[in-house]
Amino acid sequence: MTTGVRRRMGVEERRQQLIGVALELFSRRSPDEVSIDEIASAAGISRPLVYHYFPGKLSLYEAALQRASDDLAARFVEPKEGPLGARLLRVMGRYFDFVDEHGPGFSALMRGGPAVGSSTTNALVDSVRQAAYVQILAHLDVTDPPARLDLVVRSWISLAESTALIWLDGRRIPREELQAQLVHDFAALAAVSAAYDEEMSALLRRILADEPADGPFADLVGQLIELAS
Amino acid sequence: MTTGVRRRMGVEERRQQLIGVALELFSRRSPDEVSIDEIASAAGISRPLVYHYFPGKLSLYEAALQRASDDLAARFVEPKEGPLGARLLRVMGRYFDFVDEHGPGFSALMRGGPAVGSSTTNALVDSVRQAAYVQILAHLDVTDPPARLDLVVRSWISLAESTALIWLDGRRIPREELQAQLVHDFAALAAVSAAYDEEMSALLRRILADEPADGPFADLVGQLIELAS
Repeated sequence: MTTGVRRRMGVEERRQQLIGVALELFSRRSPDEVSIDEIASAAGISRPLVYHYFPGKLSLYEAALQRASDDLAARFVEPKEGPLGARLLRVMGRYFDFVDEHGPGFSALMRGGPAVGSSTTNALVDSVRQAAYVQILAHLDVTDPPARLDLVVRSWISLAESTALIWLDGRRIPREELQAQLVHDFAALAAVSAAYDEEMSALLRRILADEPADGPFADLVGQLIELAS
Repeated sequence: MTTGVRRRMGVEERRQQLIGVALELFSRRSPDEVSIDEIASAAGISRPLVYHYFPGKLSLYEAALQRASDDLAARFVEPKEGPLGARLLRVMGRYFDFVDEHGPGFSALMRGGPAVGSSTTNALVDSVRQAAYVQILAHLDVTDPPARLDLVVRSWISLAESTALIWLDGRRIPREELQAQLVHDFAALAAVSAAYDEEMSALLRRILADEPADGPFADLVGQLIELAS
């Protein structure tokens, strides 16, 4: 019996440790630039032992991406309480926290790297978009979205992705401004759609009716009217 | 000397013919589903002869994508005459023509297929986005865009892509409506950004000042005010 000797980890525990170490490295630098040697060294084990748990870098990358996807999807969950604009603004804060924490890995994934086009990574990216979509519809109290609402929600999700990517490229605009701007963008895209469609217009009126006069949606309308005058 | 016999094509002519045939097939079905045999058969030559001109399907795909990218970028070019809203609306019409003509190939490329992640295909997609970006700035008479205008233009380009992809998935909304909606979306995103920034506000006021009372921008402002009231 010895003490001070590192405890042997079980298989699942070791896999989880490696995923955590890899995700940390993939988040700080583009995944193409991270080697298995580096992951082994950061985990304090040998390179062959990494291959014992993961057959190659792609499978470790996919496992790390799975953990990151679960993490991000969990941040979309927000209690259905209080005005919608304020709820969305809190989610945007947590979304930018995530983007900030995983910057280089997020950019590499979304801009298309060597592992993109793998059906697993594509499916994970889609699952996160779907989680966002489901959350937004739940907050809007809509179960069977008409085509125009579907378009507004899905295209806004893609706008949030591209806004985050552009922010990461130089961070030239304060993220707090972009978080609020995306909430406004949602209202603006919904308003444009409502200009074409009575169903969207009724939905938007219902949403705006519950917004406080000092909330982000009311802000926007005031500013647009001022701009138009 | 014989007549009625098929003329032998030169190398470059044959390459261009194959690119045309392949692009036609890649546009009508997802490129993964198109085989070299089918391309050979449609071009009226043998499979080995296709490989004589292109080492593999990826290189033929990349050549077809190059031609499609040049075609799309050319459709962004619009004379700098008349109101901006009307110019952008004409470009949106030609953009949706392109999307309509190349539907399945466009979806496969933008959603991430087997050839995505090739540095050549990524570079081609980026070059088309850059062509759109350059055209928009030229029409706005801006040479050195501030960070917030850069964000509005780039994120709107990504919105146009996602809107086209969502349209292709079932075509549940008339494309004419989406073409006009994207023009409105541009104004709406610029207006949201202007609400945060004096420079963007000045730029937007300059644009709106030249818009006619019956143009798409003026339309939108009227509809937003009505909605807000």
